[in-house]
Amino acid sequence: MSESVPAPTPESVRSCDLLLSARHVVTQDAERRVLDHAAVAVAGGRVAAAGPRAEVAAAWRAARTLDLGESILLPGLVNAHTHAPMALLRGLSDDLPLQRWLTEHVFPVEQHHTPDSVRAGAMLACAEMLRTGCTCYADMHFFSAQSAEAAVATGIRAVPGEAVFGFPTPAYADPEAALDAARAAHERFRGHPRIRPALAPHAEYTTTPEMLQKSFALAEELDVPWLFHLAETRRETGDCLARRGMRPTAYLDSLGLLGPRACLAHCVDISEAEVRLLAERGARVAHCPESNMKLASGVAPVPALLAAGGVVGLGTDGPASNNNLNLFGEMASASLVHKAVSLDPTTLDAQTALDLATRGSAACVGWPELGRIEVGGPADLCALDLNVPWMQPCYNPVSQVVYAATGAEVRCTVVAGEVVWLDGKFTTFDYPALLRELENWAKWVLEKV
Amino acid sequence: MSESVPAPTPESVRSCDLLLSARHVVTQDAERRVLDHAAVAVAGGRVAAAGPRAEVAAAWRAARTLDLGESILLPGLVNAHTHAPMALLRGLSDDLPLQRWLTEHVFPVEQHHTPDSVRAGAMLACAEMLRTGCTCYADMHFFSAQSAEAAVATGIRAVPGEAVFGFPTPAYADPEAALDAARAAHERFRGHPRIRPALAPHAEYTTTPEMLQKSFALAEELDVPWLFHLAETRRETGDCLARRGMRPTAYLDSLGLLGPRACLAHCVDISEAEVRLLAERGARVAHCPESNMKLASGVAPVPALLAAGGVVGLGTDGPASNNNLNLFGEMASASLVHKAVSLDPTTLDAQTALDLATRGSAACVGWPELGRIEVGGPADLCALDLNVPWMQPCYNPVSQVVYAATGAEVRCTVVAGEVVWLDGKFTTFDYPALLRELENWAKWVLEKV
Repeated sequence: MSESVPAPTPESVRSCDLLLSARHVVTQDAERRVLDHAAVAVAGGRVAAAGPRAEVAAAWRAARTLDLGESILLPGLVNAHTHAPMALLRGLSDDLPLQRWLTEHVFPVEQHHTPDSVRAGAMLACAEMLRTGCTCYADMHFFSAQSAEAAVATGIRAVPGEAVFGFPTPAYADPEAALDAARAAHERFRGHPRIRPALAPHAEYTTTPEMLQKSFALAEELDVPWLFHLAETRRETGDCLARRGMRPTAYLDSLGLLGPRACLAHCVDISEAEVRLLAERGARVAHCPESNMKLASGVAPVPALLAAGGVVGLGTDGPASNNNLNLFGEMASASLVHKAVSLDPTTLDAQTALDLATRGSAACVGWPELGRIEVGGPADLCALDLNVPWMQPCYNPVSQVVYAATGAEVRCTVVAGEVVWLDGKFTTFDYPALLRELENWAKWVLEKV
Repeated sequence: MSESVPAPTPESVRSCDLLLSARHVVTQDAERRVLDHAAVAVAGGRVAAAGPRAEVAAAWRAARTLDLGESILLPGLVNAHTHAPMALLRGLSDDLPLQRWLTEHVFPVEQHHTPDSVRAGAMLACAEMLRTGCTCYADMHFFSAQSAEAAVATGIRAVPGEAVFGFPTPAYADPEAALDAARAAHERFRGHPRIRPALAPHAEYTTTPEMLQKSFALAEELDVPWLFHLAETRRETGDCLARRGMRPTAYLDSLGLLGPRACLAHCVDISEAEVRLLAERGARVAHCPESNMKLASGVAPVPALLAAGGVVGLGTDGPASNNNLNLFGEMASASLVHKAVSLDPTTLDAQTALDLATRGSAACVGWPELGRIEVGGPADLCALDLNVPWMQPCYNPVSQVVYAATGAEVRCTVVAGEVVWLDGKFTTFDYPALLRELENWAKWVLEKV
């Protein structure tokens, strides 16, 4: 304890639930402070204190203490866009264009989905995200209540968006039933500390203007995010021009749907004027670089969006087009691909990449207090083990997090103050049982192909 | 055991040193066979058999048996280009252009290198590579005998290239002394089963034509690879045009150095004609996509090189410009960036990416029997644990290896028949002691900045 810190009197020592200490704490607070030899106290699911280890340890009596030793403690990452249940389809088919992949490989299996299969895929996805330091995700899938159930069971935080289409789906013969399902999910999870159901109309090419507007009106009524795929490919733009006489971004704006409530995944094929429009409207953009690369959709103009003052988060997209839900890899890919495309190595530096996956994604999913370690904010955390060879030596923790970490060295994940993953074990659910269950679901998928 | 397999008679059962079994064996043989429920028998550091588990187990009596269960066994990956000792500088500075990064951040530290500091960095690098399934690397650094010593100590296979410059270095006041050092290393490790010293002149802009030709003549005399940086950036091309009146590839060809002995790292700024020339000459290209992206050098025309019949391997480049030595991430990055740049999702598919990091890299480092599991070939192997969430389900092992694996799920690495990494422990050296030693080396680096 440094001498400048007054010794706490017995009365001034307060109780907390959990005290975590680590070699480095990357706070992602407003000043982007990185604390060395630091600790975080957690009480009631929130951060009670963050500061020098000796000070925090002296001021707080913890029910449980975790000394994470040579590690980097940082905010849990936030996945701004995914389709968690698609984990069941990981690696089923690759190296194909988006439309062929969707219509010949993905949709033929997905039409057989039941609530049980959706839940199984979501359980696997939640396990993967928690295991790799992601503590909150925004989802787009039908049977969204099942994704929410998986989030409840595993302990992750979630914004499960009910997918809305303009045609019947495996979930609903009547498209409007998706809106009823979203309303029911909202009622069911009202007040839940970790689950905030949302609306998630799929895309311009799979919906009607009426369904988009109805879903947006419901999102406004319930005050929840409105998640949407926008301008993913040049083909989408061409088709939209032919169908609506407008490019996708203009189409959305013409319907009055371009605003801070909208979390727009991809935004690859957007013009300079559209970059400015998205920033002016305050729409959130969920950047999915690995999926956009893998499907050869292109590279979203994220540096331009950021320069224009746009709000940008990071998403993995579904695990069938990535093929993982790992935001550590996604941060590195984001930084690297934008440097390669711009031919400027200062583009999207490590701090910016980390900002995307924390504060940016938090804004995207409508939960802006996430993605930082700040007193009073949610205690969503992850810790990276520095003892693996690729994390040595550690001169700059932010650089290490973005350019060296794989995500697999996450040794501890905390959501809302609960330790859900620690040193090889999930504490919230029976992972070996899930693995056994997945063997049968994999057979089920292969029968449907 | 299937009924079609005759029960071996006692006389027909042969002895081997090691028998590994796994759910999937990705052989990377000429037919790219993937065997399910398979086993590999190892004797005398070489593959004695590979086939259905029951058959192999019945035919071979093993001194040691490792049942790797739900895992993918594949050839150890080969890193075609790195600077292993730079592991000491990992994350020291990022987000800078190549020349500023080299001259203002890297060279100022590297001028203080001693054999001990080079060895410490190489030890860390070898640990990282073995830990992430890489079993052989080609290196370019001065004090190459120290890199070789680290390879000997850790158990990895190595092609340590003695860096040759046209001016004095921390290693040699007289540039020609590098040639003597290379010759001495060649003598010292003559006949070593895992170490094959090589020549590694740095680049056009750091050497003279005379030194290039002398180093090449020595490589020919000793019959070892000649490693070189070629056409990494547009700036290199411009400077070379100004200095030599030729582009770098033409310059190398004019000196008679463009052939199968040359392993040329980067080859980013090469024209269509140069693609054809490299292929025609049979020169090997070490593709380093992550370093090229991070330093914003651009994207090498690898699909065109492959289409022209060129020989291409995969390298990480040094861990200070990557910032890791992980070939699993490198395979995914290679596939993704070429899809993004070509806007064609069929570009550089999973099998091609795996070919680069195995058979392609093996050709690059002058050890063409590596990078495959074939009877009679070296027993260099790694096994990926399928029980981690991101490796589930596994429909296509090659897709899983390239698009889902992080490299951290490697649970077993075997080099020349020796198990060097298994379930959390290195068997060949004291890793905790290395970690302690690195604390002091990190302080040493910070003193030199």
